[in-house]
Amino acid sequence: MVKVDLSGALGFLDSAGPDYGAASLAHKALADGIWAGAEFTGWRQLPRRVQGEELKKIQTAAERIRDTSQVLVVVGIGGSYLGARAGIELIRPKNGPEVIFAGNGLSPDDLNDKIERLGDRDFSVNVVSKSGTTLEPAVAFRVFRGLLEKKYGAAAKKRIYATTDAARGVLKTIADDEGYETFVVPDDVGGRYSVLSAVGLLPLAAAGCDIQTLVGAAAEAMYDLDQRSAENPAWQYAAARNALYARGKTIELLASYEPSFRYMAEWWKQLFGESEGKNGVGIYPASVEYNADLHSMGQYIQEGPRTLMETVVSFERPLRDYEVPFSMGDADGLNYLAGRGLGEISRVAMEAVKAAHVAGGVPNIGISVPRRDEDGFAELVCFFETACAISGYMLGVNPFDQPGVEAYKKNMFRMLGKPGA
Amino acid sequence: MVKVDLSGALGFLDSAGPDYGAASLAHKALADGIWAGAEFTGWRQLPRRVQGEELKKIQTAAERIRDTSQVLVVVGIGGSYLGARAGIELIRPKNGPEVIFAGNGLSPDDLNDKIERLGDRDFSVNVVSKSGTTLEPAVAFRVFRGLLEKKYGAAAKKRIYATTDAARGVLKTIADDEGYETFVVPDDVGGRYSVLSAVGLLPLAAAGCDIQTLVGAAAEAMYDLDQRSAENPAWQYAAARNALYARGKTIELLASYEPSFRYMAEWWKQLFGESEGKNGVGIYPASVEYNADLHSMGQYIQEGPRTLMETVVSFERPLRDYEVPFSMGDADGLNYLAGRGLGEISRVAMEAVKAAHVAGGVPNIGISVPRRDEDGFAELVCFFETACAISGYMLGVNPFDQPGVEAYKKNMFRMLGKPGA
Repeated sequence: MVKVDLSGALGFLDSAGPDYGAASLAHKALADGIWAGAEFTGWRQLPRRVQGEELKKIQTAAERIRDTSQVLVVVGIGGSYLGARAGIELIRPKNGPEVIFAGNGLSPDDLNDKIERLGDRDFSVNVVSKSGTTLEPAVAFRVFRGLLEKKYGAAAKKRIYATTDAARGVLKTIADDEGYETFVVPDDVGGRYSVLSAVGLLPLAAAGCDIQTLVGAAAEAMYDLDQRSAENPAWQYAAARNALYARGKTIELLASYEPSFRYMAEWWKQLFGESEGKNGVGIYPASVEYNADLHSMGQYIQEGPRTLMETVVSFERPLRDYEVPFSMGDADGLNYLAGRGLGEISRVAMEAVKAAHVAGGVPNIGISVPRRDEDGFAELVCFFETACAISGYMLGVNPFDQPGVEAYKKNMFRMLGKPGA
Repeated sequence: MVKVDLSGALGFLDSAGPDYGAASLAHKALADGIWAGAEFTGWRQLPRRVQGEELKKIQTAAERIRDTSQVLVVVGIGGSYLGARAGIELIRPKNGPEVIFAGNGLSPDDLNDKIERLGDRDFSVNVVSKSGTTLEPAVAFRVFRGLLEKKYGAAAKKRIYATTDAARGVLKTIADDEGYETFVVPDDVGGRYSVLSAVGLLPLAAAGCDIQTLVGAAAEAMYDLDQRSAENPAWQYAAARNALYARGKTIELLASYEPSFRYMAEWWKQLFGESEGKNGVGIYPASVEYNADLHSMGQYIQEGPRTLMETVVSFERPLRDYEVPFSMGDADGLNYLAGRGLGEISRVAMEAVKAAHVAGGVPNIGISVPRRDEDGFAELVCFFETACAISGYMLGVNPFDQPGVEAYKKNMFRMLGKPGA
C-alpha cells in the first residue's frame, strides 16, 4: 500500500491542515458518478474487469510475441504508450524482447534510427489507437506494417496485434479485414487512465512483467483507495497539493532517486497535466531525477522563486543492495562509508535533501511503496489515478476531458491538406 | 549560425519590443569582465584555447579508448556529464564504443543494472570531477576502478582517464600517484559551461563525434556571438525571454521535435536554472518533447494558466528524410501524404502547433540551426551559453555561481558521519 508522508508539507499550511472535507465530497461524487466526466470512470474497475478471460488472452498473445520475436514495436502516442513504457522501464524485466516505442513523433531521423535499431531481427507490432486516425501512430503503423509485410509476406498479419475500439473506427476496420488479433480500448476509460487495460498490459506482459501479480495488486489497491477516510493516501495527496497550490505553490516537482522512474514521471505529467490544466488553472507538473538533478536544478530549487512544491516517490527497499567497497590507503577518503549499502546511503541523501529544501521554502510530500516491482507499479498507478480524479474535482475541473488537444490537430490537418479538413 | 524567430513572441510585448539596450549593457559587462562572476567567463575562449595541442591530446586518448574498449564508462554529475551526454545523444555517432554515464546517483538498483549492462566487455573509465570529493561520482569511481583492477590488474591504470583540476584536489593526487592520463577542468570555467573543454570533448570524441569540426564551428560561433548588435541572436533570445518573464511568463518550455534533443534540454535546464535561479528570481526551465508531449502536456499548454512561454529548437533539414509510403486501397486514409517526406510534414506540424499555442496565449520563440550534427551542436552550445550569461546579467544575478547547491551536501555529509563534517 502507498504511504503518504506530509511531515514536510504541513508547516506550509495553516493549522486547519489539508481540506479532507473537500476531498471527501470529491471522492463521493467520483464514486456516485454524479459530476462531470462520470462516463469515463471505468478505470476504477479495470483491475477487476480484466481478471479472468481477458487476462488469459493477453498472456497468450504475449507468450506468442515472446516466442516469435526479438523485438516488439509498440505504436502509440500519449496514453497509448506512456503507461506501458513507464511500467517496463520501472520494473526492467529481464530476458524479454526489446520493446521499441514508435509512432509518438514525426521526426524522420528518429524513425530511421528506430528502423536501424530493429535491424533484421524478428519482430511483431502492437498498434494502440482508439480511432486509428491520430496522425503520428497512423504513419508509423503504415511504415512498420510495410516492413513486416516485406519480411514475412502473408504471415505478417499474424505478427500484428491491434488494441483499439471494440466496434468502430479505422483501425478496427483494418484489423477485422486483415484478421489481426484485437484487444479493446474500453469506452469508459480515457487514454491517460488506460494502462491497466490491454493498452498497457499487452506490452508489459510481452516484455516479461508478471501481469497476473500486477493486476492482483491493482485490484487490491483500488479497493483500499475506495475507502472514504482521512487515512486514504489519495485524499492526503490530493488535499495537500491543492492546499499548497492555493498558497502559491504553482509548480509541482515529481522527484525520484531511481533513474528507472523516469517514464513514470512522464506518465504522471500527462495524468495530472491533462486532467487539471484547463480553464486557466492547474499546477504545472514537472519532474526531476535525483541525485543527478541536485547538480543541475538543485540551485533553482533551493534559491529560486518560492513557487515550488516537491513530491518525492521512493521505494523502501532496493531489489539488490550494493556495498561501498573498502580501499587500501583510503586515497579518496570514502572508507567511512565502506561496507555500508548504497540503499541506506541513498536514503540518508533523501532525508538531507528534504531538510535542505523544506528549510529553503519548498514543501515536501513523500510517497513510498515497498519496491520497484509489479506490486509497486500497480500501487502507484492506482494511487495516482485515484488522487488525480479527486484532486481535479477539488480544483473544480473535469479531470476526464482534454478539449485543448484538438487545437493543433485541426491546424495541422488543414495545413497538410487532409481531405475534408 | 543560430537563427532566432521572435514572430510568435512580439505580439505579447508592448510596442517597444525586447530591451536591446539592456542586452547591450549586459554584453559589454560580460566582455569587459566587470560584473559579478567575471573570473568564470573563460568559456568564451574555450574553443580557441583548446585548438592545437590539447585537441590532439584528446583525440589521441579517444583513439586509444576506441581501439581498446567496447564501452566507455563516464563518471561525473551535473556539468561533468550533461554536456557530453547531450552531444552524444543529439549527434548519435555510429560505430563507437557504447558510453555508460555513471556516478550521477546513488541508487544501488541502477548501479547493479549498469554493471550488468557492462557485462564482460572491454572498457575504459573517464572520471570527471574538479575536486574528486563530490560523493556520487567518487563512490562510482571507486566501484568502476575496482572492476577495472579486477579485470586488468596492473594494466587497469592505463584505462583510466581523469579530467580534473590542473594542480589540486583528491582526484588530481590519485591520478598523479597512479599515473593516469589527466585532462584539465579549467579554473575559469564553471561546470555548466565546460562542455567545450576536455570535460565534454573526450567523451564526445571517444563516442565517435568529430571534435575537430565541432571545435572549429564553436570558435566561429563564439566570434559571431561576440558582435554587439541587435542582430545578435543571443541578444534577441535573452531580451525576449526577460521581457516575457516581466510580463508574467514564469515557466519556459524548451521544446523540440527531435527525440535525440532530450539531453540537450537537460543540459539547457542546468545552464539556465543554475545560472538564474537565485535570490528568489528566475524563469523555471522545463522541457517537452514533441510530438509525443502534445498528447500529454498539450492540454495544459493550450488551456492551463497563462504563465508559459515556449522556446522551440528546430533543425532545418533532417540527416535523411523518410517518405510516407503509398498503400493500396488507402484503408487508413493516409494516401494524401504518400510520397511526401516526414521532414516537411513535421515542419508543418511545428507551424500548426505554433499557431495553436500563440492563439491560446503562449508566446513562442523559434531557435534553429541547419542540422543535428557537430556544427549544429556547437552552434547551440555557444548560443545558449552566451545568451544565458547576458540574460542572467539582465535579470540582475550572477550567472556564474551556485551557492544553493551546498545546502543538501552539508546535511548529507553530516548525517553520513563524514569525518570533519
